Amino acid sequence: MDKPCFIQSSEPVLERPIFVLGLSGFGNVGKIAIHLLIKFCGAKPFAELYSPSFPDCVIVNSKGICHMPHYEFYAAHMEKNDFLIMTGDTQPSFDDVVAHYMLCGEILDFVEKKRCSFIVTIGGAPITEEKAQVYVAATSPRLALEFMEKGAALYSKGRIVGATGLMLGLARERNLEGVCLLGATSGIRADRGAGFSVFKFLMKALGNEVKEGL
Amino acid sequence: MDKPCFIQSSEPVLERPIFVLGLSGFGNVGKIAIHLLIKFCGAKPFAELYSPSFPDCVIVNSKGICHMPHYEFYAAHMEKNDFLIMTGDTQPSFDDVVAHYMLCGEILDFVEKKRCSFIVTIGGAPITEEKAQVYVAATSPRLALEFMEKGAALYSKGRIVGATGLMLGLARERNLEGVCLLGATSGIRADRGAGFSVFKFLMKALGNEVKEGL
Amino acid sequence: MDKPCFIQSSEPVLERPIFVLGLSGFGNVGKIAIHLLIKFCGAKPFAELYSPSFPDCVIVNSKGICHMPHYEFYAAHMEKNDFLIMTGDTQPSFDDVVAHYMLCGEILDFVEKKRCSFIVTIGGAPITEEKAQVYVAATSPRLALEFMEKGAALYSKGRIVGATGLMLGLARERNLEGVCLLGATSGIRADRGAGFSVFKFLMKALGNEVKEGL
Amino acid sequence: MDKPCFIQSSEPVLERPIFVLGLSGFGNVGKIAIHLLIKFCGAKPFAELYSPSFPDCVIVNSKGICHMPHYEFYAAHMEKNDFLIMTGDTQPSFDDVVAHYMLCGEILDFVEKKRCSFIVTIGGAPITEEKAQVYVAATSPRLALEFMEKGAALYSKGRIVGATGLMLGLARERNLEGVCLLGATSGIRADRGAGFSVFKFLMKALGNEVKEGL
Repeated sequence: MDKPCFIQSSEPVLERPIFVLGLSGFGNVGKIAIHLLIKFCGAKPFAELYSPSFPDCVIVNSKGICHMPHYEFYAAHMEKNDFLIMTGDTQPSFDDVVAHYMLCGEILDFVEKKRCSFIVTIGGAPITEEKAQVYVAATSPRLALEFMEKGAALYSKGRIVGATGLMLGLARERNLEGVCLLGATSGIRADRGAGFSVFKFLMKALGNEVKEGL
Repeated sequence: MDKPCFIQSSEPVLERPIFVLGLSGFGNVGKIAIHLLIKFCGAKPFAELYSPSFPDCVIVNSKGICHMPHYEFYAAHMEKNDFLIMTGDTQPSFDDVVAHYMLCGEILDFVEKKRCSFIVTIGGAPITEEKAQVYVAATSPRLALEFMEKGAALYSKGRIVGATGLMLGLARERNLEGVCLLGATSGIRADRGAGFSVFKFLMKALGNEVKEGL
Repeated sequence: MDKPCFIQSSEPVLERPIFVLGLSGFGNVGKIAIHLLIKFCGAKPFAELYSPSFPDCVIVNSKGICHMPHYEFYAAHMEKNDFLIMTGDTQPSFDDVVAHYMLCGEILDFVEKKRCSFIVTIGGAPITEEKAQVYVAATSPRLALEFMEKGAALYSKGRIVGATGLMLGLARERNLEGVCLLGATSGIRADRGAGFSVFKFLMKALGNEVKEGL
Repeated sequence: MDKPCFIQSSEPVLERPIFVLGLSGFGNVGKIAIHLLIKFCGAKPFAELYSPSFPDCVIVNSKGICHMPHYEFYAAHMEKNDFLIMTGDTQPSFDDVVAHYMLCGEILDFVEKKRCSFIVTIGGAPITEEKAQVYVAATSPRLALEFMEKGAALYSKGRIVGATGLMLGLARERNLEGVCLLGATSGIRADRGAGFSVFKFLMKALGNEVKEGL
């Protein structure tokens, strides 16, 4: 394997889906929120992405079975809107920045072919003051305002590192629109509360009702 | 030298050999187990692999003679099965992950041409609770079960870093089968006991008898 | 994005402009001095440069809007001389030195096409002894002397790291001339005083008068 | 600049010269010994080598003049033998191992064209027990013995990192012969004593007399 490689098992039928992504990272907020979203929507896996810039290791599951680090793509058809969802147990190694740019570019090519034009990236923000607060950064002032009206606080003057930030920045260069939603977390361990807050906020913002008991 | 380079001195005659590899690493368990295997089987060296992604240094032996870091390949014909064995005094530098993927890919190409379809990678696991325990992770549930029945404990929920993990993961992507055997070790220094335990377990699992006095 | 990419919005009319650059870095002296220069000259932005060797993050401004790390180019027409100015909120990641050489090379190609033949790079120097001192290093003894006569101290026997040094060194290899002006700073936080000192010195050296109240 | 670049100002007339190299590094032993050798032999500079894998900085000399990091080549004609000498104020960045392999390979191509077939690399070894001891590692047992008979101690069981080791290892792969001479040093600061010891030993080993007052 000398370049990124998509393995697609089926072709989902989606109508202008929203592309939502969350990876392992700060407080694992992104990955936790995405897993709640997949469960809530009954999303089905349809593709995997492997890359030689992922860490040189193998991941072993609870049954002792090995798999290479990869990203997974899921599709979900909902009443309000369709979702194309990406998650994964890894990110490219910190040393290979160019590889990360190229990988995110290939992912955007992939989701644009599936007719995504709106992107939501989910991560954690190292902010401990307010409980369960969700922060938003956006590709336009209009979008920032729209999500603030729905209850998010403005994430201003900072950097959003890794795929959570890079994917949104590169999407904006392509004239796509989107937001980054960051759950406030101490980040010391996997923060299920922060992940749930971001998931619930996203569902509310997009017009889906989530019951507390999920 | 701008890419990996195999130097093969002879062509071994092997019948569907098992590919076994162990490199320097945690507690040097892999390298120690492989050296015991080479000695036990009377395996003969037949090829070397050099790569510009190995460390930029020279290794000096006890007689003051220099050689470049490299992997060595050995062949052994045994009653129960043939072996193609790889060991070495190095691994690619941590910063060049893509190079590691490509190097492991070239090694799998090489051993597939020698008709290997089963792979055993050996390393150390930083587990100090149980003495001399051998852990197994596998490419399939059937294999994990088979090696557990022979006495290995299940290595579950974790990562196996470096060539020990990567080679097994990439092998699985090619529909090869295999296991990773990890010797529990504190890893502070070269752990001959853990290396011997893994070697003995592997021989037993494959039907070869090893006397304690080796 | 797999290579550096210039996005030019207009073509400035400049007569043999001086190329002045300052980036974020030690004490942020370079960036502060450049912002003063842009304000003083009424310089207009005309191009941006994006690169996959910039950090894999997105930068969020005070209004919560995301943009990719990039360099910005400005043009200014002044009585004494024209300026082509470059600044930015980033530098290539430390790990990718070759990318930094290539990026600086592409920038020099770009500014040479705009007929720049003299280059001024601005940064901070970790020197705390003298207040508001400006140091100079140059591509020739004649230039070093000329700027020392105008009040700079000689920066001798050391390294100037990052684009501030690399751009001047690569310019010299192309037989371009130039100087590096370093503002003495403790570098602990953004040093507006040091930035202003370098800006004022540069304007005086080039024959422009700056009033203290700027 | 996207690849290494030799700039040769003249073509020295040399008869099967010995290639001697020493760079900045541990205790600066290599660079100090080489400077003594250049002075002793009256060696003349004839080429420079620039590379985008050298650090992204500029080096400023005592007169405030900038130059890019580079290697320098010198030629000297002596009664006993000719020398082709390389030194420099830098080494490739640690992160780019492949670049270091390729750079050393291009240097060996260069010196083989000048008909060098014997190589001496000089560096420092972090050994503090014995004063002024010189250690040797070699490409063959015969050479190790020869230099031990002349007074060097054997450097056994270890690694020699950077160009000092890599160049000798790659030379051996090409069937060139050579030795690495390491001066014992604490390495805390530039160790002129260790540099002089290695220089004096090399001259003695090659049959040149050095007076103490140099």
